[in-house]
Amino acid sequence: MKKTARNFKTVEGGVCAPSGFMAAGIHCGIKKKRKDLALIFSRDVCAAAGCFTTSALKSESLQVAQKHLARKKAQAVIVNSGNANCCTGKQGIRDAEQMCGLVAKALNIPADYVVPSSTGVIGEPMPMNEVKRGIEEIVAGLSREGNLDAAGAILTTDMLPKECAVAMRIQGKIVRLGGMAKGAGMIHPNMATMKCFLTTDAEVGAKLLQKLLSRAVENSFNCISVDGDRSPSDTVLLMANGASGVKIKSKEDAEVFYGALSFVATHLAKLIVRGGEGTTKCMDILVEGAKTKDDAQKVARTIANSNLVKTAVFGCDANWGRIVNAVGYSGANVNMNMVDVFIGDMKVCENCRFYPFNEKRARDYLSKKEVRLRVNLKMGKASARMWASDLSYEYVRINAEYRT
Amino acid sequence: MKKTARNFKTVEGGVCAPSGFMAAGIHCGIKKKRKDLALIFSRDVCAAAGCFTTSALKSESLQVAQKHLARKKAQAVIVNSGNANCCTGKQGIRDAEQMCGLVAKALNIPADYVVPSSTGVIGEPMPMNEVKRGIEEIVAGLSREGNLDAAGAILTTDMLPKECAVAMRIQGKIVRLGGMAKGAGMIHPNMATMKCFLTTDAEVGAKLLQKLLSRAVENSFNCISVDGDRSPSDTVLLMANGASGVKIKSKEDAEVFYGALSFVATHLAKLIVRGGEGTTKCMDILVEGAKTKDDAQKVARTIANSNLVKTAVFGCDANWGRIVNAVGYSGANVNMNMVDVFIGDMKVCENCRFYPFNEKRARDYLSKKEVRLRVNLKMGKASARMWASDLSYEYVRINAEYRT
Repeated sequence: MKKTARNFKTVEGGVCAPSGFMAAGIHCGIKKKRKDLALIFSRDVCAAAGCFTTSALKSESLQVAQKHLARKKAQAVIVNSGNANCCTGKQGIRDAEQMCGLVAKALNIPADYVVPSSTGVIGEPMPMNEVKRGIEEIVAGLSREGNLDAAGAILTTDMLPKECAVAMRIQGKIVRLGGMAKGAGMIHPNMATMKCFLTTDAEVGAKLLQKLLSRAVENSFNCISVDGDRSPSDTVLLMANGASGVKIKSKEDAEVFYGALSFVATHLAKLIVRGGEGTTKCMDILVEGAKTKDDAQKVARTIANSNLVKTAVFGCDANWGRIVNAVGYSGANVNMNMVDVFIGDMKVCENCRFYPFNEKRARDYLSKKEVRLRVNLKMGKASARMWASDLSYEYVRINAEYRT
Repeated sequence: MKKTARNFKTVEGGVCAPSGFMAAGIHCGIKKKRKDLALIFSRDVCAAAGCFTTSALKSESLQVAQKHLARKKAQAVIVNSGNANCCTGKQGIRDAEQMCGLVAKALNIPADYVVPSSTGVIGEPMPMNEVKRGIEEIVAGLSREGNLDAAGAILTTDMLPKECAVAMRIQGKIVRLGGMAKGAGMIHPNMATMKCFLTTDAEVGAKLLQKLLSRAVENSFNCISVDGDRSPSDTVLLMANGASGVKIKSKEDAEVFYGALSFVATHLAKLIVRGGEGTTKCMDILVEGAKTKDDAQKVARTIANSNLVKTAVFGCDANWGRIVNAVGYSGANVNMNMVDVFIGDMKVCENCRFYPFNEKRARDYLSKKEVRLRVNLKMGKASARMWASDLSYEYVRINAEYRT
């Protein structure tokens, strides 16, 4: 165990780290070769909380997931990659329901305790023959060691599995929380699809669980930008099965639990940016001194989504003019004459004017894998942070490739 | 003269096509080699109208331009490229005033009849020695044939001069209107800076002139997207000197004049997209059937700015899923189950579902230089149009290059 913060330690095991969870990941035939079907199962019924895409376009799988979560309970998640089950209409709804029904039957649980999730091509029917065979196989393969297989099976163009798990001590007992994520990019068409499945053996009431998850998502997954596009499949799900015997009720316990949840969510969010299509480096953008949180977020988001800032960072160019420019058109309440800009610890712009800096040092700094950009608006006390990828040739290549 | 529409014909001459206008363009030394200083001069005082950047960051040159236009009168425009005179503070204001003062003195007109405009590097002081010498030279070089030199001197990374002029008959007399523009990209840092200078020998009251210009800009320059970034220097200026002896007053005359103005503005706006950084093709995006104009514009703008749509078009991929996806997260009031998408004349998506189409035909169509994408929301009668560039390797290269 590596100590990473005061109240928890990181552990191995991903979504299987908490007691009572099993997982599996297999190739069933939706994709040509790579794994394409994942299953997470809890021996006990879980309280469940979810955050979903804000797009008006919601995949048929996601519509069924939201319906099944109406009771705030879940016991299994079935995820496929290679087909988004999106723009598929009534047949898509039936297919998602059938996936859940088959999993439920094999596991002997109610169908609406199964949450379906899909990512991949839009507008094509689900290859249900492959899925049906796959579900039989995957249920049989569930194990306490299946986390990495599952984490691999939800990927598309992001090649590396993304996992994280922590253990914390609450009421003298060990509580665990784990998760896996997939990031920007589907095989085709590529969208900034983002999925994260989190598990914990704490016992948490559904209402509190949703509150904590929403807060953690706001400060992690909602702070990342790869290309500014959103997807019809974006999903973050958290299941709490209570197998640790620890019930989170007091404010203090909830804060300890939140600290761990926030760490895992943030860690996975950053892995998504790093694993973004064609990402060569990550920008950690901090906007300080805003009058309101909303102003700070507008500025941070505009910088994070600016193709001109992204390409400058890719090119290791200390181009503070593009940053100031993004502040200008962000729509936030700012006094341009007060704006300071920092690249790493180096001030490069003061009161919206050039501030003498060492170009070579700035260039060296910008060739690192992770670069910090900081803007101080000097108007108030609100701040916001964003993690964003740069924009490289590779992004264009991946996204311009024709469907094969 | 080539006939292009019912009420006007295109003519040669750019900003010098209307009577009474002279122009010049020279290299004064702000850039290393290419032309970097342009002047337009009218022998008579003009009514003047302008549209400027909506960014909170306004270049010092632009601030002085707005101040000088307070009386709605102008007689000369001095434009430099290579330096944006932006984030330059009080010194930048003094420099812009001095540029105007020198031009005014040489031409024997009031200083506030001179409008300054700059584009280029942000945050560096104007090289005033070069500019001073340049102004002497350029005033001496003014001529009725200087339009192309002037059009070349306002460019930065967009290599081709952009000009357009038309002649129309009003009240039995010939009235002319001409213009020149520069598009996305400055030498460094590259921003989507957009400038357009328009001249006419019609006599038009300043209030009507502004009304017509604002309407034309709304339907032309505000409908283009290269990279979604806005610049602190965006400027469209229209000067009317009345030298034709025709006064535009009646509604009918104003509509004829507007038709010509709108044609020139639209033509120049499209040239800007075509000349965008790394543009290999133009998308003509039409959104129909929206409930409100605002909804139609939100959808059109989101599609135009989507990196995923831009890269798909670059890759000749009939990826209607990315278009539908952009509709979904546009924030517009839409019923996703009604959305139809067309690539050229080919329907590729009906009611948000796959519509059978010939992939090869779609791919062939998308390899053209100009491709039409059409979305029908089937909710109402409002529509909006955008012209946008694709996103290519070349865009990344140009924008990642380090300052030299």
